[in-house]
Amino acid sequence: PKIVTLPGDGIGPEVTAAAVEVLREVAPDLTFEEHAIGGMAYDAHGDPFPQRTRDALADADAVLLGTVGGPQNSPWNSLPRPMRPESGLLALRKALGCYANLRPVRVQPGLEHLSPLKPELARGVDILIVRELLGGVYFDQDRKIDGDTAYNTMRYTTPEVERVARMAFWAAEQRKGRVTSVDKANVLEVSELWRRDVQALRDRDYRNIHLNHEYVDSVAMLIVSDPSRYDVIVTENLFGDILSDLAAVIPGSLGLMPSASLGDGAGLFEPIHGSAPDIAGKGIANPAAAIMSAAMLLRHGLKRSDAANQIERAVALALREEPTRDLGGKADTRTFTNAVLEAMG
Amino acid sequence: PKIVTLPGDGIGPEVTAAAVEVLREVAPDLTFEEHAIGGMAYDAHGDPFPQRTRDALADADAVLLGTVGGPQNSPWNSLPRPMRPESGLLALRKALGCYANLRPVRVQPGLEHLSPLKPELARGVDILIVRELLGGVYFDQDRKIDGDTAYNTMRYTTPEVERVARMAFWAAEQRKGRVTSVDKANVLEVSELWRRDVQALRDRDYRNIHLNHEYVDSVAMLIVSDPSRYDVIVTENLFGDILSDLAAVIPGSLGLMPSASLGDGAGLFEPIHGSAPDIAGKGIANPAAAIMSAAMLLRHGLKRSDAANQIERAVALALREEPTRDLGGKADTRTFTNAVLEAMG
Ligand SMILES: CC(C)[C@H](C(=O)O)[C@@H](O)C(=O)O
Ligand SMILES: CC(C)[C@H](C(=O)O)[C@@H](O)C(=O)O
Repeated sequence: PKIVTLPGDGIGPEVTAAAVEVLREVAPDLTFEEHAIGGMAYDAHGDPFPQRTRDALADADAVLLGTVGGPQNSPWNSLPRPMRPESGLLALRKALGCYANLRPVRVQPGLEHLSPLKPELARGVDILIVRELLGGVYFDQDRKIDGDTAYNTMRYTTPEVERVARMAFWAAEQRKGRVTSVDKANVLEVSELWRRDVQALRDRDYRNIHLNHEYVDSVAMLIVSDPSRYDVIVTENLFGDILSDLAAVIPGSLGLMPSASLGDGAGLFEPIHGSAPDIAGKGIANPAAAIMSAAMLLRHGLKRSDAANQIERAVALALREEPTRDLGGKADTRTFTNAVLEAMG
Repeated sequence: PKIVTLPGDGIGPEVTAAAVEVLREVAPDLTFEEHAIGGMAYDAHGDPFPQRTRDALADADAVLLGTVGGPQNSPWNSLPRPMRPESGLLALRKALGCYANLRPVRVQPGLEHLSPLKPELARGVDILIVRELLGGVYFDQDRKIDGDTAYNTMRYTTPEVERVARMAFWAAEQRKGRVTSVDKANVLEVSELWRRDVQALRDRDYRNIHLNHEYVDSVAMLIVSDPSRYDVIVTENLFGDILSDLAAVIPGSLGLMPSASLGDGAGLFEPIHGSAPDIAGKGIANPAAAIMSAAMLLRHGLKRSDAANQIERAVALALREEPTRDLGGKADTRTFTNAVLEAMG
C-alpha cells in the first residue's frame, strides 16, 4: 500500500517523520511518497496545494498529514485567500472527498490530572466527534466582500447530511450506540434541514441507534460541565470546527489528539495540533498525536486494527515512561519516538 | 422611570417577580408594566411578540426579561418559525435596537469549587463577553429551504461591526484595557471584514486599548484551558452565542449569570439560563441571575451604580447564607429572595 505523506509547515515534518518511523516498524510493506502542502508548498511551488501533490493522491491508499500554517504575523497570511496555507488544506480535503472528520476524545486512565476539568469530570470521558468536512460555509461559492459588506453562505443538501450521518451511526454501532446531532435549529434553516434528515435516516436505517438533537450553544456548555453524557457527536463543518477543538482540551494535551478524515477515497490522517512555529525545528515537539494518527491510518485507512492497537498501547506506555515537555516531562521528539518503538518491540 | 417586564415562559415569571421585588426595594421610584412575550404570548395573543408589547417599549427606560421557550417536545417548536417563542425574542432584540449583548463571567471568590474547571484555573476569572446581537446569520433575509437544500447567509457591514466594537472598547476602558476580537478570518470573508474594521477602529479611536485577534476554534480551547488570559472578548452573533454560553459554565452555575443587551434605546436585561420547564411553577428556581440582571439594569440602563453595587453585594452574601438547590443548598426562590432583601436592608 502507498502512503502519501504531507509533512507541511512548522513542526509538521518532525512529527510526521516520527509517525513514519513507527509505521515502518509495524507495517514494513508500506511505501511512502512525500509531497508538499501549505505554506512551504507555496514558497516552493507558488501554490499551497500543487498539482504534483494532487496527482500523487490518485493512487494513494492513505494520506498522512503533518501541520499547515505559519505564525500569526507570517507573510502567508496576507496572500490572496486561495494562496494561503489553509486553502491548501481545504483543497486537499476536497480533492480526497473526505466528508467526515473523526476526532476521538479519550481521557487516558491515570492521566486525568492533565485535564483542565476537575478529575471527577474528566475521568472516563470517551467521545467521538464526527464533523462534516466538505460542506457548509467553508465551501461557499458566493463568498464576497462588497465595499463595506461581507457575505458567506451556509448551505447543506440532504445527500451531504446523510452521508456524514451514516458515518456517525456506523461509528456509534461499534461504540455505545448513542448519537447526539448538534445544530442551531431554533434559528437556522440549514439546521432545520440537518435535523430533519438526520432523524429520518435514523428512523429508516438505524433504529438500533439512540439519537437526540441538541443546540450548539447548549453542547458547548455540556461538553465542559458534563462530558460523560456524550458518546458520538455529529455536526456540520463550522460547529464541528469549534466543538471538536473545544472537546480536544479535555484530555489536557493537544499533543495527544489524532484525527481521521474519511470519505469515498483514501483517508486523511493528521494530528489536530497546530504547526507550533515557535518550537519548529528544535526536535522537541511531541509526536504522540502524529503517531496516534498513524494508528488511525492503519485502523480506518488500511483495516489493520491489530497494528493500530499495537501502536496505541505503545504510545500509552511511552507517555508514562518518557513524557514530553508539554506533559511536564523531559523527553524530546527522538526520545519519545524511541520509547514508542521499544514498547512495540 | 418606567420598566417594562416580560416574564415569559417556564421559570421566567418566578425569577422576574423576585427581581422586581428587589428593584422596588432599592429604587422605589420605578414603575413596572408587565407584558407578554414568547410561547405564552403566542398562546394568549397568537404572536410571540404581540403588538401591545411592542407598543409598550416606546417609552420604556429599560426592559427586564425573564426566559422564553418551552420544553424540547413543546408544540411551540413545530409552529411556523415566525410564531415560535425564539422568534419573539429575536424580534424584541431588534425592536429595541440592542446590538450588543454584554455577559460578565466572574468567578466569585470562595465559589471556585462550583466550577467544572480545576480551582486553580477558575480562580480570579473575570471576562466580559460582548456579543453582536442584531447581525450575522441570525437576521438573514434570504434564508430558505428549497427542496433538499437549505441556505443561511452570514452578512456584516462596517457600521454593524464598528458600533459593537466601540461598545467593547468602551467597556475595556473601565476594565483592564484588553480586547480580544474573535473571528474565523482564515476561512470567512465576513471575518476578514470584521477583523479589518475592528483593528481600524482601534487604530483610529482607541489607541490606549490593547487589541488582539484570535480564531473562534482556538478561543473555544483557551477559554477552558486558560480563561484568565481574557479581559474583554468581542465577537459576532453566532460565535458569541456559542462562546458566551461556553464561558458561562466556568463559574459553575448558570443560575448566577446575568446579561445586558444595549444599543441606541432602552436596554434589555435578562438571566442567561433557560426557561427550565421541568421546575417551572414549583417556587424552587434560583432567582440570582434575574436579580443580578436587575443590577445590570440599574447600572447600565439607569446609570445607578450605587444601587447596582448594593444588589450585587447582597446577592453575594445571600449565596453564601442561603444557597439554592442548584448550588447544593436548600433555599427555594422565596427564601433566597428574602436573604437578598435582608442583606440589603
Ligand atoms: C486551518 C483551518 C482552515 C481548519 C478548519 O477550520 O477546518 C482547522 O481549524 C481545522 O480544524 O482543521
Ligand atoms: C433562543 C436563541 C434564539 C437565543 C440565541 O441564540 O440568541 C439564545 O440561545 C440566547 O443566546 O439568547
